[in-house]
Amino acid sequence: MQTALSRKFGIDYPVFGFTPSEHVAAAISRAGGLGVLGCVRFNDADELDAVLTWMDENTDGKPYGVDIVMPAKVPTEGTAVDLDKLIPEEHRAFVDRTLTELGVPPLSDDVEEASGVLGWLHSVARSHVDIALGHRISLIANALGSPPKDVIDQAHEKGVPVAALAGAVEHARRHVENGVDIVIAQGYEAGGHTGEVASMVLWPEIVDAIGDSASVLAAGGVGSGRQVAAALALGADGVWMGSYWLTAAEYKLGSAANGPSSIQRALLGATSSDTVRSRIYSGKPARLLKTKWTEAWSRPDAPAPLPMPLQNILVSEAHQRISAAGDPEVVAMPVGQVVGRMNEIRPVSDIMNELVTGYDQAVDRLNQAR
Amino acid sequence: MQTALSRKFGIDYPVFGFTPSEHVAAAISRAGGLGVLGCVRFNDADELDAVLTWMDENTDGKPYGVDIVMPAKVPTEGTAVDLDKLIPEEHRAFVDRTLTELGVPPLSDDVEEASGVLGWLHSVARSHVDIALGHRISLIANALGSPPKDVIDQAHEKGVPVAALAGAVEHARRHVENGVDIVIAQGYEAGGHTGEVASMVLWPEIVDAIGDSASVLAAGGVGSGRQVAAALALGADGVWMGSYWLTAAEYKLGSAANGPSSIQRALLGATSSDTVRSRIYSGKPARLLKTKWTEAWSRPDAPAPLPMPLQNILVSEAHQRISAAGDPEVVAMPVGQVVGRMNEIRPVSDIMNELVTGYDQAVDRLNQAR
Repeated sequence: MQTALSRKFGIDYPVFGFTPSEHVAAAISRAGGLGVLGCVRFNDADELDAVLTWMDENTDGKPYGVDIVMPAKVPTEGTAVDLDKLIPEEHRAFVDRTLTELGVPPLSDDVEEASGVLGWLHSVARSHVDIALGHRISLIANALGSPPKDVIDQAHEKGVPVAALAGAVEHARRHVENGVDIVIAQGYEAGGHTGEVASMVLWPEIVDAIGDSASVLAAGGVGSGRQVAAALALGADGVWMGSYWLTAAEYKLGSAANGPSSIQRALLGATSSDTVRSRIYSGKPARLLKTKWTEAWSRPDAPAPLPMPLQNILVSEAHQRISAAGDPEVVAMPVGQVVGRMNEIRPVSDIMNELVTGYDQAVDRLNQAR
Repeated sequence: MQTALSRKFGIDYPVFGFTPSEHVAAAISRAGGLGVLGCVRFNDADELDAVLTWMDENTDGKPYGVDIVMPAKVPTEGTAVDLDKLIPEEHRAFVDRTLTELGVPPLSDDVEEASGVLGWLHSVARSHVDIALGHRISLIANALGSPPKDVIDQAHEKGVPVAALAGAVEHARRHVENGVDIVIAQGYEAGGHTGEVASMVLWPEIVDAIGDSASVLAAGGVGSGRQVAAALALGADGVWMGSYWLTAAEYKLGSAANGPSSIQRALLGATSSDTVRSRIYSGKPARLLKTKWTEAWSRPDAPAPLPMPLQNILVSEAHQRISAAGDPEVVAMPVGQVVGRMNEIRPVSDIMNELVTGYDQAVDRLNQAR
């Protein structure tokens, strides 16, 4: 399982694994893929710096990358306090009422309230880029469109390629014009921010549209070697997997003790029909696990979600409360339709082995059908 | 390009082509696939009988099939006149107002008003089955779930296998329990009636769920040899293509003269983002070309679509008027996201050649990546 792109990165398999967990990211790189650490949760620059130092030391010298969320258009800037004022009272009241109805208790007094995902602000994202470029990174990805031109230039000066997410052909074309090296073609079935066009149609369409001017990673629905084979058959240079690592044994975010977290238990029990695409997480359409929380937002009395970054600031404390409550039926978590295939907690190395073995079996099947 | 299923049917390629046009269906069979004629448009039994006789005579002795739409639950029965009474005045007024706004003239006096797609009534569907079994058919498909048990038995008595559409694993399991031989796994991106789970996730999930107890055809997003390769890599026994034949040269429905019809011109210009999944065509969610007509139904003043079969009876005359008006911007047509790839009018044999060539190239690419 090798492509021109995997050879370019010096990795064993063209499997790019996005995850907010440094433990999972490092394990993906050690297993022969490229672990890509999601940085949006790091509001504190020093914390990100420390985690990347840990990555440098725990990847056996193998390459890894970072994902920094930079909106294509500069949104409302300002401190958390300024932005707070833009949130309507109706929205706050709905969130409070809903959490009470769902039995989610307030935070205990000793927990500090989060100030929302400030990583979605340009100023914070740029500090992430500065910090990341001080480490041994092999890729900067932006899970939300083209990074600003100066960020692309800054990465290229350090010899670091840049990847950007595209949910439609015109986004892919714009990325390439902006100097992006790798387009992540993210189909409808993907977790997190996603468009309307599904992977089977989107991947080859983007491959054809951008030709040799950039590489294409196939994202949305990949969780098996058969799906990797499908991606390469459709012309992609590799796969980008996000959701599937959430039930990796190394994923410990949100776990209070040993054993699966409430989020992992919810994911293990979900089918491919148990997701919903909604603006309630960030303000832009994103696929989430369907739970009592997402269902509440589709009731007639629910307000329309706010634009990015306000919506995430609105629900930030709610996410903390939901996480602390630990009820698998009330979860706020981006995940793709591939969740239906996430039915056990396994080490990253087992997942990678299955991808490679499944790929070989799929190619055998295709050769037999010749 | 051969699988156990294509060998079972005695066809050259595991390509099952659904189309309402007998000319296209016959061409698909002659080109080495299995042409499947959609029968829902035949309200008159004698007309269907005559067309199937034409199919018998124009397929060079090669196998073909029929698609008959049978709702899983028996819906409201009755004559067109009875059913008409169940349609609210508000809905009729909205349709009339919208057509006027869109510049769609009334039918001229010499045109007979259609009475809606009565093929969606069980009584009509059963007469279709009776007629079809009097012809040299190799498959009965139901594009709307399991056919009634007695229809399956009736087909099996004549040695004719039965296929049914599934948009989720539980539908596929139910079909197999009911005795269906072939499950058509129809992903979100498909044209016509479709569910929420996209092909990349749905196809392997259904393959795994039903094991060897039935064959699986991959539907939704297929319009190239690469996509056929992806389907077989994901474990399917063949592909089911519907939308892609709408721009075949042999497709003449709706054409007043030579050259592409207004519908074909609309399809040729559409991108993969120009579809919408809506209940306005039949009462159940179906993917349609996005045009001024579908957009009107998503306005705040639009009424909610009626249940099947009432919605189609409501819009039946509108569809006739739209078709007669011939404006490519006002079209009512089911089509999948693969419409973005439908950019020229080509004979069926050219399309089939591209499928076979593209398949080979895709498998070459996968072998190189090994």
